[in-house]
Amino acid sequence: MADIARLADHVGQAVTVRGWVHHLRSSGKIRFLVVRDGTGLVQGVLVKGQLPDGDFQEFDRLTLESSLILEGLVRAEPRAPGGFELTVTRLEPLQIPQDYPIAPKEHGVGFLMDHRHLWLRSPRQQAILRVRDEVFRACRDFFHGQGFVLVDTPILTPTACEGTTSLFETDYLDRGKAYLSQSGQLYLEAAAMALGRVYCFGPTFRAEKSKTRRHLTEFWMVEAEAAFFTLEDIMGLAEGLVSYVVQEVLAHRGQELKILERDISPLEAAVPPFPRISYGEALARLNEGGQEMAWGEDFGGDEETLISQAFDRPVMVHRYPRQCKAFYMEADAANPELALCVDMLAPEGYGEIIGGSQRVADLEVLLTRLAEHRLPREPLEWYLDLRRYGSVPHSGFGLGIERLVAWLCGLKHVREAIPFPRLLDRLYP
Amino acid sequence: MADIARLADHVGQAVTVRGWVHHLRSSGKIRFLVVRDGTGLVQGVLVKGQLPDGDFQEFDRLTLESSLILEGLVRAEPRAPGGFELTVTRLEPLQIPQDYPIAPKEHGVGFLMDHRHLWLRSPRQQAILRVRDEVFRACRDFFHGQGFVLVDTPILTPTACEGTTSLFETDYLDRGKAYLSQSGQLYLEAAAMALGRVYCFGPTFRAEKSKTRRHLTEFWMVEAEAAFFTLEDIMGLAEGLVSYVVQEVLAHRGQELKILERDISPLEAAVPPFPRISYGEALARLNEGGQEMAWGEDFGGDEETLISQAFDRPVMVHRYPRQCKAFYMEADAANPELALCVDMLAPEGYGEIIGGSQRVADLEVLLTRLAEHRLPREPLEWYLDLRRYGSVPHSGFGLGIERLVAWLCGLKHVREAIPFPRLLDRLYP
Repeated sequence: MADIARLADHVGQAVTVRGWVHHLRSSGKIRFLVVRDGTGLVQGVLVKGQLPDGDFQEFDRLTLESSLILEGLVRAEPRAPGGFELTVTRLEPLQIPQDYPIAPKEHGVGFLMDHRHLWLRSPRQQAILRVRDEVFRACRDFFHGQGFVLVDTPILTPTACEGTTSLFETDYLDRGKAYLSQSGQLYLEAAAMALGRVYCFGPTFRAEKSKTRRHLTEFWMVEAEAAFFTLEDIMGLAEGLVSYVVQEVLAHRGQELKILERDISPLEAAVPPFPRISYGEALARLNEGGQEMAWGEDFGGDEETLISQAFDRPVMVHRYPRQCKAFYMEADAANPELALCVDMLAPEGYGEIIGGSQRVADLEVLLTRLAEHRLPREPLEWYLDLRRYGSVPHSGFGLGIERLVAWLCGLKHVREAIPFPRLLDRLYP
Repeated sequence: MADIARLADHVGQAVTVRGWVHHLRSSGKIRFLVVRDGTGLVQGVLVKGQLPDGDFQEFDRLTLESSLILEGLVRAEPRAPGGFELTVTRLEPLQIPQDYPIAPKEHGVGFLMDHRHLWLRSPRQQAILRVRDEVFRACRDFFHGQGFVLVDTPILTPTACEGTTSLFETDYLDRGKAYLSQSGQLYLEAAAMALGRVYCFGPTFRAEKSKTRRHLTEFWMVEAEAAFFTLEDIMGLAEGLVSYVVQEVLAHRGQELKILERDISPLEAAVPPFPRISYGEALARLNEGGQEMAWGEDFGGDEETLISQAFDRPVMVHRYPRQCKAFYMEADAANPELALCVDMLAPEGYGEIIGGSQRVADLEVLLTRLAEHRLPREPLEWYLDLRRYGSVPHSGFGLGIERLVAWLCGLKHVREAIPFPRLLDRLYP
């Protein structure tokens, strides 16, 4: 049994290939069928007399996505996709579908999403999934190389500490309500006090009613947290992570980027140093560009696109006004109205891919913040403990995987960046 | 700034170490403090005159888990934990806790679980988390090496296809109910038809009211699915995975296993081939051993322990009666009352760590099974499509991470095998 991707190892040999019919064609007395097995595509050539007559006739019954077993001789064929051809000596259909719903023509997105379980078989979707796999690998390798320990944070959490409107809730046995986590950060802070440098990598949830090309209700995040790291440290780490991931994808997924017709020059440009500008500077640029905005407001997707367009690589915008950011961000000693935080914006209008900050280290400051944000203290007592028992300066960030994959692959919408997307109006299949 | 784990690179040099007080001791005019920074432990020695008097006096204010910055000279000291000592030249406390709740004495489990966010700092819990991190790495490396592509399956799913009693449910925006996934298998089957060999790795959920040492309501699974794999293939894959993970943990986490006082001989024995016995043979062994059980019943924890005790390494029990297994399992052609399935039981009474099977490939058979199990067909139409459009024989399995970690670490209860456990009676912190 041979993987199609490995046929180079079998030139001149007889092999067995198993897979699905990707394409069928007749030309005179010769029959061609392109087979995919998940590792690649190969063209099989059927010439009467070179395989049993019965097998040759089976060709006429085949349809798109028929499953089959082929035996044949591997020939190098530079003109063939993949570089090899199979002179077929045996053909055994396994199951022959009627009316495979996805024809090689244009379908609407709704139709394709309804058939996501089959749509995944298309070369484009396969390529995206392989890029995604590489992104996961690269993130893990990067953090491992930097001495970070994986600490999985819980999905089921007892508190709706930032309000319930955008949280999925469930009954937790006989113990009241539980909420699906929007971020592992608070738990990761506890783990950073134990292990120094930690990260988590899992699904997160937002029951937001936003219907944009950048939003999913269920998406994956990799989040890092490190004791004694400052905002500067975390910016360096974020820059290192993103440039490493891009590099690994370019190195190992060139074939997939080609299938996706991705212009790779914006990816090749993503090498350190990434530009760093303050919120104030970003705001001035927006206002100069005619996009009027008052100091204190957070940027939306349009502003992010405008800001990022001035740069050829991801840009880090730091020190936003505290008033538009979360309660746990440390104030900038040089200007306490600013938070020691950073957003990384992807180029080409892909928006925020990373959000991070230095966290409040002092118990009294944190208590004041909870009061200002009208957040309940009692469910966060354990989090407050981290400031009671050996508090240290620490920082962290979260990277949204689907937005990064969308940028790397050049996708118009994040829904293609995850195998089975969950959207405002979609929970099936 | 130096990691304690890296002090070997700095012998004879001045370094800065940042961390938390793990232990304090005075002996005459000398003060000792053991500091941890998440990477390791080092003893600092304070001798009056070798550091500023003010810094020396700060020692008396220190308590357990005080955070601090130390400067000092690194000396090799074979008797010291870690092999090095620091002759302290500067001591700067950052925050000094009052009454750290976890004293170096015995606490009840309830108390420790209430303080899980602090308990993680103990050497034992750190060691477990590092073993867990290694297990994740090894699983991913293994599957990548075998040509499997990571395909994340959704957590929010539209169907309660095996009954709602053990499912967490939530309102999905305006689209009715959604359920938290118990397994990614069905989705992974779709992905296997696209990419051939796939795996997923994420949290899964069971709202079971079982209070045993083997159950969590939220736990992590790695699941694999491969087109054209038979039961035999999947048994070989499962054996390869588990032996690889054990080997990697032994190779890279020996220090942690020592902290856990783990007898590693049962781990060293876990090399292929793992014994394979049929359900029938296992049942006969139980009955011979006086544990009466009728043919057709599934094994519980007690039976699993008894069966596994006869072997020095994980044992694979295959071909259970179909009547006690799930609807999607292929029947054994040699005896259609049996399912082509396998459970892997860990040694030393740790129970089932893997469950897998060959899946039903034929549409009509699957429809019959759904009817037999009184399962609704409509929400599974997409799954049935996999049998309509190029169905192939395929197989897969799921490995429960916390049970594997519990076995590797020799833990009495799975609750210590996950950073923030969710149990029948526990959702905090």
